[in-house]
Amino acid sequence: MTSTKDRILETSLSLFNRQGERNVTTNHIADALGISPGNLYYHFRNKGTIVAALFDRYQLQLLALLEAPQGPLSWQVKVHYFEGLLASMWQYRFFHRDLSHFLHADPALAARYQQFVETVLVRGTVIYEELRSSGILALDDEQLQGLMVNTWVLMSSWAALIHGLRPDAAADEGLDERLMRHGVYQIICLEEPFLKGEAREHLAEMKARYRAADNTSELLLGHMPRLDRTGSE
Amino acid sequence: MTSTKDRILETSLSLFNRQGERNVTTNHIADALGISPGNLYYHFRNKGTIVAALFDRYQLQLLALLEAPQGPLSWQVKVHYFEGLLASMWQYRFFHRDLSHFLHADPALAARYQQFVETVLVRGTVIYEELRSSGILALDDEQLQGLMVNTWVLMSSWAALIHGLRPDAAADEGLDERLMRHGVYQIICLEEPFLKGEAREHLAEMKARYRAADNTSELLLGHMPRLDRTGSE
Repeated sequence: MTSTKDRILETSLSLFNRQGERNVTTNHIADALGISPGNLYYHFRNKGTIVAALFDRYQLQLLALLEAPQGPLSWQVKVHYFEGLLASMWQYRFFHRDLSHFLHADPALAARYQQFVETVLVRGTVIYEELRSSGILALDDEQLQGLMVNTWVLMSSWAALIHGLRPDAAADEGLDERLMRHGVYQIICLEEPFLKGEAREHLAEMKARYRAADNTSELLLGHMPRLDRTGSE
Repeated sequence: MTSTKDRILETSLSLFNRQGERNVTTNHIADALGISPGNLYYHFRNKGTIVAALFDRYQLQLLALLEAPQGPLSWQVKVHYFEGLLASMWQYRFFHRDLSHFLHADPALAARYQQFVETVLVRGTVIYEELRSSGILALDDEQLQGLMVNTWVLMSSWAALIHGLRPDAAADEGLDERLMRHGVYQIICLEEPFLKGEAREHLAEMKARYRAADNTSELLLGHMPRLDRTGSE
């Protein structure tokens, strides 16, 4: 049976993702659960402690995904990683949308976030090295490092980027999910030049799996881009 | 002679960049200029209008850089673009650090930002197409689009990313600038697989020009990465 604490976290996550963390109060969360605010405060003394507890869950989920792989890797393993990344990005999208706000508001969370990024970079590098030694990627050490950092920038920034460009997605879960899937497509674009062998043969299939629109600019802007003459107005 | 309005903008920009926009009040700005708060309010009714006016300047500067190029391009033109990008990122870094906050707080600014991103994507694509037809980049249309979007994600997110990971850089302008330069290095890493001809011959030189550390993770974290056993604590 799910504990009240777990139910508070699950409901908060769902409300934060759909309505934005700033627009959700602890009273909204208690209302949605049909419990008293006093009962909620018994488990979490304020909204910040809920955000921090959700960060713990996000961290555990992503780091489990990045456990050192067992044995040689195949191109299918890349699908596994992409699906896992997408699930994490989607499930905790409120967190990445307002990341800089959360880090600014809670120094303890910021310290844990730095530790988390460190672990992600180390484990991600191990995985890229395994992909290289399994003959899936062809790159030198400097290129591997550059790719790892760029993948992290893209993954951790994508939710905020689309949130700023497509505010309408907040009220349209289908659109929001397409936008997040396209973030995985952009990660595939990063890796593409380094793919070889079987992984390269399956590149078109991988791109098609996550591509949410033929024209990325159109997807990000909500219309076909027009060349603006003045650059302002 | 510089007008009071210009002086207010220049001083605000400098204070925002060094101290963070949230920590700077209109009284701080008036103090730094040796003018009365009333004089400042005569020109700008609140801090938000100063941020919006600085966004206009940032936009004009970046869009001027992205004017359609004249004639065939050389690898030196890439240096010109990188230097211009770096100057804009550095000069208006406060804006990119807290971008999602500004867009959330000011819907009119958010609308102008969307228009700006649209123009950047269109003009950036024109430049990448010119680089391709000048024999500097070898890529197909889909790869070009993917590269354009990933370059924009990296450029617009880098300041916030390093701000979250290296809060110590706020008090160390030399470190802060090295971190921003390394953002250009990461953009070069994005383009590297597609470079050909003379541009490829000068790749090592370009990388060396912007690389701020041999180990990017070490630069971002402030120490050599350690493999964390638990992933939490």
